Parts: sequence; structure tokens; C-alpha cells
Amino acid sequence: MDESSLARLVEHYERIGTTGLTVLGVFGEAVRLSAEERRTVLQAVVDAVDLPLVVGVTALATAPVLEEARLVRDVVGDRLAGLMVHVNSPDPQVVVAHLDTVHDATGAGIVVQDYPATSRVAIRTADLVHAVRAVPSTVAVKAEAPPTAAAVARLTAELDVPVFGGLGLLDELAAGAAGTMTGFSCPEGLIACVRTWHSGGHDAARQAYLPYLPLVNFEAQAGIALALRKEAIRQRGLITDSGVRPPATQLPQALVPQLERHLAALPEEVR
Amino acid sequence: MDESSLARLVEHYERIGTTGLTVLGVFGEAVRLSAEERRTVLQAVVDAVDLPLVVGVTALATAPVLEEARLVRDVVGDRLAGLMVHVNSPDPQVVVAHLDTVHDATGAGIVVQDYPATSRVAIRTADLVHAVRAVPSTVAVKAEAPPTAAAVARLTAELDVPVFGGLGLLDELAAGAAGTMTGFSCPEGLIACVRTWHSGGHDAARQAYLPYLPLVNFEAQAGIALALRKEAIRQRGLITDSGVRPPATQLPQALVPQLERHLAALPEEVR
Amino acid sequence: MDESSLARLVEHYERIGTTGLTVLGVFGEAVRLSAEERRTVLQAVVDAVDLPLVVGVTALATAPVLEEARLVRDVVGDRLAGLMVHVNSPDPQVVVAHLDTVHDATGAGIVVQDYPATSRVAIRTADLVHAVRAVPSTVAVKAEAPPTAAAVARLTAELDVPVFGGLGLLDELAAGAAGTMTGFSCPEGLIACVRTWHSGGHDAARQAYLPYLPLVNFEAQAGIALALRKEAIRQRGLITDSGVRPPATQLPQALVPQLERHLAALPEEVR
Amino acid sequence: MDESSLARLVEHYERIGTTGLTVLGVFGEAVRLSAEERRTVLQAVVDAVDLPLVVGVTALATAPVLEEARLVRDVVGDRLAGLMVHVNSPDPQVVVAHLDTVHDATGAGIVVQDYPATSRVAIRTADLVHAVRAVPSTVAVKAEAPPTAAAVARLTAELDVPVFGGLGLLDELAAGAAGTMTGFSCPEGLIACVRTWHSGGHDAARQAYLPYLPLVNFEAQAGIALALRKEAIRQRGLITDSGVRPPATQLPQALVPQLERHLAALPEEVR
Repeated sequence: MDESSLARLVEHYERIGTTGLTVLGVFGEAVRLSAEERRTVLQAVVDAVDLPLVVGVTALATAPVLEEARLVRDVVGDRLAGLMVHVNSPDPQVVVAHLDTVHDATGAGIVVQDYPATSRVAIRTADLVHAVRAVPSTVAVKAEAPPTAAAVARLTAELDVPVFGGLGLLDELAAGAAGTMTGFSCPEGLIACVRTWHSGGHDAARQAYLPYLPLVNFEAQAGIALALRKEAIRQRGLITDSGVRPPATQLPQALVPQLERHLAALPEEVR
Repeated sequence: MDESSLARLVEHYERIGTTGLTVLGVFGEAVRLSAEERRTVLQAVVDAVDLPLVVGVTALATAPVLEEARLVRDVVGDRLAGLMVHVNSPDPQVVVAHLDTVHDATGAGIVVQDYPATSRVAIRTADLVHAVRAVPSTVAVKAEAPPTAAAVARLTAELDVPVFGGLGLLDELAAGAAGTMTGFSCPEGLIACVRTWHSGGHDAARQAYLPYLPLVNFEAQAGIALALRKEAIRQRGLITDSGVRPPATQLPQALVPQLERHLAALPEEVR
Repeated sequence: MDESSLARLVEHYERIGTTGLTVLGVFGEAVRLSAEERRTVLQAVVDAVDLPLVVGVTALATAPVLEEARLVRDVVGDRLAGLMVHVNSPDPQVVVAHLDTVHDATGAGIVVQDYPATSRVAIRTADLVHAVRAVPSTVAVKAEAPPTAAAVARLTAELDVPVFGGLGLLDELAAGAAGTMTGFSCPEGLIACVRTWHSGGHDAARQAYLPYLPLVNFEAQAGIALALRKEAIRQRGLITDSGVRPPATQLPQALVPQLERHLAALPEEVR
Repeated sequence: MDESSLARLVEHYERIGTTGLTVLGVFGEAVRLSAEERRTVLQAVVDAVDLPLVVGVTALATAPVLEEARLVRDVVGDRLAGLMVHVNSPDPQVVVAHLDTVHDATGAGIVVQDYPATSRVAIRTADLVHAVRAVPSTVAVKAEAPPTAAAVARLTAELDVPVFGGLGLLDELAAGAAGTMTGFSCPEGLIACVRTWHSGGHDAARQAYLPYLPLVNFEAQAGIALALRKEAIRQRGLITDSGVRPPATQLPQALVPQLERHLAALPEEVR
């Protein structure tokens, strides 16, 4: 654990205009932390910034989710903007019972996360709509089941809560997304895209996001995304060490020069 | 949690001649318990029986495994015959570092579990051999990557530690397995098979296992195995409630009559 | 291609009382044959026996299925009891359009095969029911999506066409299956189970199937099932060579002695 | 089949400076064509352009691959620059035997395709290197196992044959790729990137590819990529109908406006 790096990182996020933070998500390596370490992460973030926090839980079953959620409540208290909980079954009734129990036990607003690559649970979009509609404590949906833009289009058409996407940000905004909650070494690019979308529309947002896209794609490579992202963040000077916890795949050294080229090609204000 | 059912169940196992218990394994629904509940399960088992205990951990990364392992040590102490730890990477070096760290931190003997259906990690048998050879604290291997009998044959030929298989018990014994560590509602059948194997050889063991095979197969149905097993155990009077924790699939009611037929057809001494 | 072995094999099947043959199914290695070889197989079978034939097609899309189906019609003609066609989509409307087109082009009765392990298509049972009801040319369903007994129970409750299962034969008959269409080196055991089921009911069928179960399970091992089955058939003297076509996994030699024990333990009449 | 659209399309590709065509690849929907239709496609392409042709085969086993390969030879003759054949096993010896047999029977140079998303075969990069080195008839490798850039880096370091990647073109060129063989509605962007890479290096190539990236990403969405790509090609006036053959997923209508925005934002010369 390197709490000072973590503080430096989230302070940077606050400074550049992030409107909220997702903590202990998939790219926060939450599944590779002990409870004690998760507590340390949350405390470091709470102490470092004043932003609203969405905090993830990793388990699928209700009892361990409640255990994780209680730790979150303990540390984050009123700063909790939402508890991000996985869709845990293809059966919407199971999902509803799960989310209701988590809300009832914690009072937390629920960010429903549909991320089959991690959860191994594939729910149909129609069933996700049914589940979300039946859970009044839902405050947002995080849609990460590809094709994401198509899912976002349907979810935003049929739900009243905000829907967040991933790195296909431009297409997801066009499909009605409220923004994105995702990992990227240069969130400046995501912020620029969303802000420009609201002020200038699609074409302006496209232009704003464009210079970041080569790095977005490079970082998104399956299996090594986390290693690339952490190294990019380290090269930006925001953290001290970029190692990923095993059994995650380590950084392929052969790709470091290209990572450096991508960083060098970013807009001047983020280099 | 129903500790009195759990105590009744493991006392039954001890009475029928089980030589050790696996606790908090995949069929112990360990992944759906909170830490507090895992503690309760372990304490109930420790209090109820005098058998050596192999205790499973559910995580793949080292930090949460250590956290689970410490709880195990706390409750089980010297009764711990082995800590059952998942193969967490296809890369044997990652596995070795992981297992060594877990042993060094806990002093526990390691039961290496190769169970890709749960862990989502597929290691080659040759790499598993390399890893196990490099980890002197290994006390056993639990081989559950199909085809299991073929894996057991190779592992027993190349390793000095005992190798345990699953419900293909007869074929796994023939391939050199030391026995089995697996879930089945009538472990009497597994015990009979192993004992007869040692006293009478293959053909006698075949005869001893044969009357249990229809139930073995019925129970092993993908996706509903746990629900069927718990209902069988309940019908045998060993537990009070057979519900499985969501999001596990519930018992299909249409199959209950056939489950009852299977139980009625068991050898008289186990009905 | 060894047509004389093939003729010998199917003549044996006819002699022991098989009521029909499935040709060019998954265990017929159909996907590893050229069109010319498929023609040769079909011709050899047609020439050797007088049984009704269900013939499989391997593709998922309509055009290549029609191509395969035309070859089948050409060779098998009126002997065709059914064309076995994969469920090719989770969407029942796509399945219906596909099956209707195949029937319209060939006149063949359709055996709808739900076999996700091969097709990589997972359809919900409720959607399979909808599809089958909408396709009047369906003559049977081959249910091979685990848990099979649960699927068979639902399909037989909601459909009028016969439903066939696999090697969980006893449980599938109990769930309403009309019989089985599956690969096993000793179909005598399957025939004995079905016949006894009709004449003597569950308990008698259980007794009839019991001596075959150890071999059923041994042969069913994932990844090597075909290699084991062909070697068992060869040892029974029904074919001359047991090699499987690459890239299928070859027979692990370490398991041959256990295969021989299984064969030696079969009822006397099939040894 | 719409041969005039196909001719128009490949004539366009020739006109814009494509150095070769891949025909009957994954995005050519080859797996959904009959042999007759594959013949028609090949003939239409041969008649329309003078480019060297790489032609794909779809099967994994040797006999059906030979059957497909013979049809290719028949129609394409000396115009065949390479026969694109799937890696059909994780075992390099199986791959070598397969590729050698295909070459011996056809005389064709082999383009080795490692595409696990389609073939369902995952080979280690080290084993792929061994296989390719042992097959002297290999003329190129098409690397499509993610992370692709990392795979390309290793393959180009250890092999003498050219390695082609996919849509991560910039990163793959940086890793040593000779170019790309992939589907994209605006191959003008791929050509511009490769040409600029050779004339101006990384930064120039980045600039050349950049305006195409939003469409590259939009089109690459899992499950609907083919439908999006064909509609983009149709809107560009290069084909008449953009329907995809079932069971492929159809175009989500909700995404059409965004597709149109992407096309409108392309460089003027390709609009």
C-alpha cells in the first residue's frame, strides 16, 4: 500500500475537475486487497479529497457484499454517493432481492454495475431494465456489457436514472449516457469530452476526445490494461510504483516505448 | 446459519468413518459467506468433531487469501491438516510465489487445488507439476480439472505428495489417487469405495461404489448440483433446511421425485 | 475412411435392437469430414442397415446447413427419419426462420438439437419451447444443455414432440424423455435401460443400466470422450482403428488399463 | 449474393491503393456461405481486380480445410498470395502437421491465423513461434489474439515472416507489424496509416490514423461489428444492401445516427 501515491493521484483528479470518484472498482484492484487494505484505501481517499465517492464491492452473494458495504459505510459515511454493486444473476428477481437487501442494511444508494467480464454474469438488457425499475434505491447504472453503446441507448430510453458507460465515451454520450465511470490514465480526456459535449455538442466533443483516443485504445488491451494504465500514471508522476498485484499480468516491457510515445503525443496541458 | 445442522452433519461424517473433513470448500458455499459466518462454520466444526480438517480459501490474490488464512488459523489452530489454496495463475512462477507467501505467513501445509470451473484459471498439468515440486509446504493436490483421471495419472506419476480427485473416484484410484475430497450427499459410498479398493482391489471397489453411482451422477448435474445435494442431505435427516444461497440456482422441483427414488435405492445401511 | 469398420459397427447396432441411428452427429466427427467423406459415411450406413436414420448437420448458418442437408437427402432419401439441426441463436425468431427454411428446402422432419457445448449457442428453455412450438416440421428435440434432466422435464411438459436426452438416461426417462440419442461404446446398456423402463419401470431400469454406469462415466470425460469411446469400440472388435482426427485430443495411454477393466466388468453378453 | 456490389467494393479497394485483399475471412461471413457461394465470391473478386489475394478457410480439421483449399485453388489459381489457415490446436505439433498437410496438398503459401475469438483455440505465443518456425511454407502470420500489440512484438522479434495485426494498427506497426489484414469500412485510413508510417514515422502515422479512430472504435463493438461495418460501407455507396446473415446480430437501429455522425466526420477525401 502506498497511501501517499494514492492521495496524490486523487488530489490530481479533484484538481482537474473530476465530479466524483469511483473507489475500489475493478481497476482499483479491489479484489486483490484485504479488508484492512480496503479500509486504508478508503480512508486515504476520504482524507485527501472532498469529492462525492462511489465505492465498489466485489462479491456476488449478499452476505459478503453486506460485509464489504459495512466497511464502506464505516469509513466513508455521508460522503458515499453510491455503493456500486454487481448484477449477480441473469434472473432479475434474484438481482432485485439482492439489491434491496443491500440497500436496507446500509441505506446506501445503489449504482448497479453490469460488467460480465468481471462478474461472469450475463443479464439481458430487458431483464436489467426490469431489475433497475424494481429497485427504488438505484441511483445510477454502470453499463459495461458490450456492445456498450447499444446497451446505453436502450437503458437510457427505458430508465429514469443516469446511465454511465466506459471508454466508448463519445458513442455512449450520443446514446444518452450521463458520463463515464471508468479507468483511464488521463481522465483529463474524459472530462474534456463530457464538458465539450454539454457545451458544444457531438462534433466538439469528438475533437476534444480525439487526441486521447490512441492512448485510450493502447491502454484498453485485454489482459494488460491495468499494467499499462498504472505505468502511464507513474510516468505522469502521479504514483511512485506501477507494479500490479499478481496474479494480474505484468507489464510487457516491449510495449513501454510505445506507451511513452502515446504520453508524449498528448495535449500539452496534460503532459 | 444453522450450526446445529452443521454439527449434526459433521458428526455423522465422523461416525461413518471419514478420515478428515474439507471445510469451506466450493460446496461449502464459502464464497457466499461473510468472514463472521466463516468463523462460525469453522468453530461449529471444530467443536463437533475431532477429525483433521482441510480448510479452503476462496480468493485468488495473496492479500485476501492471507486474510482468510489467518481467520482459519485463529479458529482451527493445530487441527488444521491443510489449507486448500487455488492455483491462481497459469504461470507456475506466480503460483509458487503465492503458495510460498501463504505458507510463510501461516505455517500451514498447503493443499493445492486445481479447479478451473471455479477459479477460471487453467494451468497445464506439466506446469502444475513444476509448481508443486517447487513448493515444499505442499501436503496434497486436489485435482479437479477434467479429464480428472488423466490428470491424476500424470500427477501421481510425477509427484510425491498425495493426489485427491473427485466423484470419478474409481477411475481416479486406478490412476493413483490417494482418495477423494469432494462433495456427495452419501459419503458412505466414497468411504466404501476407498476402503474396498485397499482391501479388495479394483473389482471389489467397483462393486462397492456401484449402488451409489446413479445418485452420484444425478447430483453432479451442472448448475444445480449444490441444490440437489443439500436436498438429499436434508432428506437423509442430516440438516434441517436445504435452501441454497442466491445467486446459486435453486432446486428444480420437477426433479425431487427422482431424487427420492435415488435415495430409496441406496444400500439399506445408508437409507 | 474405413467403410468396412463402419458397416460392421452399424450392423452390430441393428442386431442388438437399436431402433434408429444418428449419423454424422458430434461423436461421428462430422465436423472433421469433407463433404465427400460425409457422403461416403452416409452411403456406407444406408447400404449396411435398414434402420431409420437421423442425420446431423454441423453448420449454424442457413446456407451451409442447406448444402449439408441436400447431400443428406441425396444419399439417404426416404430413409431419413429426421435432419438434426443445431439451435443457432438465443433468439427464438432466428431459430424458427432457420428451421423453417431448412424444412422448406428439403422436406425433412427436423430434430432440434440444443447442444451449447458444441454450438456455443445458449438458448433459454422457455425460448426453446417457443421456437419448437412454432416449427411444425419438428419431429423431435435432442436436449443436451445441462442440467439435462431439468431441461427434459420442462420440455416434455410443454411440448408434444418426443424429447431425447443423453447419458443421464435413467434420470431423463424419469423426466419424460422418449429415449436417448447419444454416443456410448456399449449401446446395449442404453437399449436395456429403455426397454426395461417400459416393461418394468424405474427400479428395473436402474438395475439394467447400473452395470454400464462405470463405463458411461469413464467414457464421458471432457476432452477425451471420443478417444476413449473409439478405443472401447475397437477393443470390442467393432472397428479396426481407434484414432481420432486431429485437432481432437488423442487417447491418454495411461488410461487404457482402466478402460480394459471397465470392459471386462461389463455384463457377459456384451463382452 | 450481390456480386455487382462485391465487385464495386473490391474495385474501390484497388483504386485507393490496397496492396492485397483478404477474401473469405471472418468479416467476409465465409462461415455463413455455401461452397457454391464461396466460389461465386472468389470468382467475382478475381474478375474485378488484379490484386494479390489472401483467401481464408473456415474449418479447423484437415479434411474440410483441404476441401475449402481446393475450391480456392480452382478459382484463384496463381493469383493466390496465401491461404489463411486457423491455428487449430494449442499443441504446436498438431498445428505443424495440419499446416504441412495443407501446403503439400495445395502448394499454397500459408498465412497462419491466430484468432481465438473465432477459432476457440488459444495457443501460447511461444508455441505459435515454434509452430511457424517448423512450417517453411508459412508466408505470414495474422495475429489476432489480444493483447495483439504484445503478441506482435514477440512474434516479429522471433520470426522471419511478416506479421500482420488488426485495428490497433499504430501500436502494431510500432511493435514491428508489416501492416494489417482486417476489416474496416474505410480502409483508406489503414492505408494512410501504413504509408505515413513508412514515409514519416510514428508521429505522422498517428496523425494520419487519428481522424479514423472514432469510427474504428465504433465499428469494433463486440457482437455488432459486422452489422455496423456493412451499414457504413453501404452508406459510403460501395454496396447496395447491408443486411448480415443470421444468426449474426442485426444492426441496432438506435446506433445509426451516431454511425452517420462518424461518417460525416471523416476526412473530406473519403466522404
